[in-house]
Amino acid sequence: MGRWEPNARDRLAQAALTLYAEQGFEKTTAAEIAARAGLTERTFFRHFADKREVLFFGTEMARDLLVRAAADAPAHATPMDTVGAALQALGALLQENPERVRQRDAVVSANAELRERELIKLAGLAAAMADALRGRGVSEPAASLAAETGIAVFKVAFARWIGEPDQPDLPEILRASMEELRNVLAERAGHHDDHVR
Amino acid sequence: MGRWEPNARDRLAQAALTLYAEQGFEKTTAAEIAARAGLTERTFFRHFADKREVLFFGTEMARDLLVRAAADAPAHATPMDTVGAALQALGALLQENPERVRQRDAVVSANAELRERELIKLAGLAAAMADALRGRGVSEPAASLAAETGIAVFKVAFARWIGEPDQPDLPEILRASMEELRNVLAERAGHHDDHVR
Repeated sequence: MGRWEPNARDRLAQAALTLYAEQGFEKTTAAEIAARAGLTERTFFRHFADKREVLFFGTEMARDLLVRAAADAPAHATPMDTVGAALQALGALLQENPERVRQRDAVVSANAELRERELIKLAGLAAAMADALRGRGVSEPAASLAAETGIAVFKVAFARWIGEPDQPDLPEILRASMEELRNVLAERAGHHDDHVR
Repeated sequence: MGRWEPNARDRLAQAALTLYAEQGFEKTTAAEIAARAGLTERTFFRHFADKREVLFFGTEMARDLLVRAAADAPAHATPMDTVGAALQALGALLQENPERVRQRDAVVSANAELRERELIKLAGLAAAMADALRGRGVSEPAASLAAETGIAVFKVAFARWIGEPDQPDLPEILRASMEELRNVLAERAGHHDDHVR
């Protein structure tokens, strides 16, 4: 990463997403990505283990962000509010560059192996969040329930955000989805008219 | 499946689980499974596409059971109570043969590829349950939130059941976990002492 390769990682990532969208993930080679970015294949492999890694190098960042946000939540925050704060931090990060996130999602959604990888990623984020909650003194099963449920809410909110480009931003959809889930869980028999068409 | 192969499918499944536990999933061949069950390899392949299928042929049954139980829930049941009823049905099925379920889980947990497959299975069950809820007239995002959250509860409850063989049965742990999640979501700032060690 010398001065003759400014933003190499970012240029490679953008070139890869463009090529995956244009010609499909399967057909794209590391050499093509490097060429599109005006860099060498060797440079590509200095930044990414393989072409799949380009789509998932953000996982570690997402995990660190969730864990840090959970740790930084106020001491009096409930487990679910702690999870909510962590999801807000992740949502805000993704909202910074919505076009790229949507482009990446389209590539991942079009490929079975990548969709599997995405599920593994989400399971890993849930485990990290449960760990962060236990680190705050939350006992089991509350920690795992709050973390897994948080990722469930994230999945639903993210799909809504992807499917409705004109809708509110991701942090707002996350907040609204969490509130909706509270309502869904709070209602008891005879009070569910709100959700029936 | 003539009369000279009574319970062939079941015998093959049990032989496979025993061999996977003894010598590992990777090292076991279809021929060995057939031999252990006292059947031919050809019979094995009449029942299962491959040795992985032995571990996942129950997925379709689980999906059908969840969908049917959701459809059969009382008309006045809330979305989350409908999900709860579906999970109870699945829990009761698994509780019928706990040793085999635990044996299968140990095999799946020991292999990365099988763990991935399990995540895909669970994602499919969540999608089927959301579909069943929409079929009952539940609107989005309530249907997806309730379904994904139900699977989140199932994951946590199942792990507790696996980890604590002396604990209550799976339906009871599912019920208790759902109630615990309601409490986790209902609590607001300043009222979370229950979950803090």
